[in-house]
Amino acid sequence: MLPYKNLIIINPEAHIPVYRQIAVQFISLIQEGKLLPGTLLPSTRVLAFDLQLHRKTITAAYDILVSEDWADNLPRKGYIVSSDLPLVKPRSYKKNKIGAFAHKNVISFEKLETILNPVVPIDHGRIMVNDGFPDISLLPVNAIAKQFKKSLDDITYKVSLRHQVSDQSNLSVELCSFLKQTRGLDMGVENIFTTRGAQMAIYIAASLIIKPGDKVIVSDPSYFIADLVFERLGAQLIRVPVDSDGVSTQAIEEVLQNHTIKMIYIIPHHHHPTTVTMSVERRQHMLRLINAYDVAVIEDDYDYDFQFKYDPYLPLASEDHGGKIIYIGSLTKVLGTPFRLGYMIATTDFLEAARKMRRLIDIRSDIIIEEAAAGLIRNGDLTRHIQKSNRLYSQRCDMASALINKELEGAVSFTKPTGGMALWLKFIPELDLSAIIKEAHKNGVTFSGSIYCTGKDANFNACRFGFASLDEKQLTEAIEIVKNAVHYIS
Amino acid sequence: MLPYKNLIIINPEAHIPVYRQIAVQFISLIQEGKLLPGTLLPSTRVLAFDLQLHRKTITAAYDILVSEDWADNLPRKGYIVSSDLPLVKPRSYKKNKIGAFAHKNVISFEKLETILNPVVPIDHGRIMVNDGFPDISLLPVNAIAKQFKKSLDDITYKVSLRHQVSDQSNLSVELCSFLKQTRGLDMGVENIFTTRGAQMAIYIAASLIIKPGDKVIVSDPSYFIADLVFERLGAQLIRVPVDSDGVSTQAIEEVLQNHTIKMIYIIPHHHHPTTVTMSVERRQHMLRLINAYDVAVIEDDYDYDFQFKYDPYLPLASEDHGGKIIYIGSLTKVLGTPFRLGYMIATTDFLEAARKMRRLIDIRSDIIIEEAAAGLIRNGDLTRHIQKSNRLYSQRCDMASALINKELEGAVSFTKPTGGMALWLKFIPELDLSAIIKEAHKNGVTFSGSIYCTGKDANFNACRFGFASLDEKQLTEAIEIVKNAVHYIS
Repeated sequence: MLPYKNLIIINPEAHIPVYRQIAVQFISLIQEGKLLPGTLLPSTRVLAFDLQLHRKTITAAYDILVSEDWADNLPRKGYIVSSDLPLVKPRSYKKNKIGAFAHKNVISFEKLETILNPVVPIDHGRIMVNDGFPDISLLPVNAIAKQFKKSLDDITYKVSLRHQVSDQSNLSVELCSFLKQTRGLDMGVENIFTTRGAQMAIYIAASLIIKPGDKVIVSDPSYFIADLVFERLGAQLIRVPVDSDGVSTQAIEEVLQNHTIKMIYIIPHHHHPTTVTMSVERRQHMLRLINAYDVAVIEDDYDYDFQFKYDPYLPLASEDHGGKIIYIGSLTKVLGTPFRLGYMIATTDFLEAARKMRRLIDIRSDIIIEEAAAGLIRNGDLTRHIQKSNRLYSQRCDMASALINKELEGAVSFTKPTGGMALWLKFIPELDLSAIIKEAHKNGVTFSGSIYCTGKDANFNACRFGFASLDEKQLTEAIEIVKNAVHYIS
Repeated sequence: MLPYKNLIIINPEAHIPVYRQIAVQFISLIQEGKLLPGTLLPSTRVLAFDLQLHRKTITAAYDILVSEDWADNLPRKGYIVSSDLPLVKPRSYKKNKIGAFAHKNVISFEKLETILNPVVPIDHGRIMVNDGFPDISLLPVNAIAKQFKKSLDDITYKVSLRHQVSDQSNLSVELCSFLKQTRGLDMGVENIFTTRGAQMAIYIAASLIIKPGDKVIVSDPSYFIADLVFERLGAQLIRVPVDSDGVSTQAIEEVLQNHTIKMIYIIPHHHHPTTVTMSVERRQHMLRLINAYDVAVIEDDYDYDFQFKYDPYLPLASEDHGGKIIYIGSLTKVLGTPFRLGYMIATTDFLEAARKMRRLIDIRSDIIIEEAAAGLIRNGDLTRHIQKSNRLYSQRCDMASALINKELEGAVSFTKPTGGMALWLKFIPELDLSAIIKEAHKNGVTFSGSIYCTGKDANFNACRFGFASLDEKQLTEAIEIVKNAVHYIS
């Protein structure tokens, strides 16, 4: 017999009657499989004694079990667990697809489907050529862990003293001086809103601006996850070409003249995916357009901190734009993909709405991580880490560029970027890029970054080649394998 | 004179002509305020010598500055920075409101406005009576910091060996056994999707289910941020009453009979805000309804881990529901508000869509934090912390209940909950709750949790009283101050 005395706990203060409390706990035991079908329940006398209750209470409980088909009352035997249980059947998540409300109800993600389905599975591969991610083996691990411990201690110490813990971290304060120093933005702490990575900033800003049917200008190609966000929000995307001077502002002007445009999404610095940086003329032109038209602008500047040489281009947001530019950046690229920290710079009234929207999707940020990041900026760890990374990435960029020029001559063209973490490799039309990537995958090199070679993107026949996280040996091997793949499919 | 030799850096590899590179860098110096209006620029001869360039190159650069109005060429003086600069005017985020695209374009948050605007400012107050948050001074700080350091080390070690780092943490594996043990859910690792807190899980699930115009059943009152999410997604909310047995399933059935309902949102355990737990009869009824109608269900079980006594109620999701229930829970309540970790349990096809949606709003989770949480579950730290917290919270619940019964007799009614972190205090209609809260605020007690006493919520005249994060002294003082406030306004 089960130790019912321990299993059945009566709470005299609950306003549920005691007999019902007992019945419910028996049902739980049956549901949990602790009481199997056909098991004899203890007699009412025995259980009443065990639980120190009146026998009538137990009988009342058993009657519920019988009336709800959990148990049967057999003459001369007593109460046994029903062998014909009402509910304990296929209640598994495992066995079910989305039940009756299945596919007709859940909003389709077809668009995402086609784009996010990788050409090759990205879980394997000896060498991963990614979209342009930092080398997280460079991370100042001890400094980060120390800051984390410190911020955790600080917060619990404050709490132990019953001091207030603010929802707001010091990250905004530190970021403000960092951004002013590095980007010349004329802003205050009140213009910063920190998020989980730049992606959440894009999602929130776009959610506040786009209504279904609105027209949004993006480059062709553009950062595809941003495209998906805008489409998901019901925007109609109008694509303008991008060349070696960045997105065509001439084309943007023509679109603005002929359509009512709600928003423009631009990446002036190390454009994604093509890595180009917008020329000065186009920047000035872009600013004139922003000031002339009634339009919101998201300036996505995810890669600004990675410049191999002094670069004179400040963000558009550092110029005069009447508060129309929402400037978005990321610390994720700096601190490595495991961290998700981004920010949005905008006017205070826009940020007020952004804070509300954020509550709907995520309540608030992770204060401990944000305090740790604030500490890393304050101590100079972040800047040192950026400088160290840039030295190494610059070498890797040189090496990757030289190797590709040598080994893939005639097959590939690219413009060596002045910073960032990836090359944009354009393959000649005669080469089938997905075939090359599949062949390379067989030989141990997996391209996990953006690949533009199918459907409407077929004419690009290009892909991102993240060099920053690969060392010399890996770069050499990866390019050798791509070279062999090109020869194999030619 | 500025050290132009160091300030102006020429990149011979850039495909921007050298004279333009020089011009752009002068513009940056002017924009940054390093070159003030009226400043004399170095002569073309001097600068050509400094930069080791031909004098004509410098002249070409200066000509750009003049043609773009950044500088003037004065006879017999040379080039000086224009005192009439084209762009360096009101480029500040600080001075601008959302420029021309202002209020007519940004989607309004009026609904949020009214609800999120607190009755009293929540930044002050000697004692904070919150919505029901854990006492983070109980957190096992050293264990957490150790796990964090360990997961950071593990990841960077793997990267240094060029091993793959998965986007997926081990948190799902640990959560799976934790949830099976504590909640009797019949599920596998593939049915878990981890998020930033329960809020993101609610947002993502609702985004996948609700299309504008869809009807959604919620209780009256219900968790107000969930309401806002559904409304934001275009849902029409149909409210059903909640009483001491939980939400009225009878009312739900009537709505289901008369409307096409897309989704039902329920909190069977420690309902927010009223703290009631759904009775067995209603649970069984609810399950019959779920199985009979073509409807999706979000079961929000944010508070399940906090039970002061053995509680027989397993989640609805542990029963047969044909995959229709999306079960949502949180580790944020367990590990304290600084952490944002939640999860969604659903069928694999639903989670596939959820993962895609998550990429749009947040790309991925924070692997380091998730690995640290996984370690805390694996080591038993989490369970020990829950047990320790429950012992203390149970005492605080007893104490708060006894004090309120004594000090606020006749003014307030409430049902003592069997778990959780808050009481739901219903004030008699004769008392103006917002006046009481304002008066208490003046005397050092700030209610920062849910307050239902204005507009359509006026009839509730009730508020959440989070007891878990207040010690004996604070509880005594807080209730004393509320008592005085009641007397003061009576």
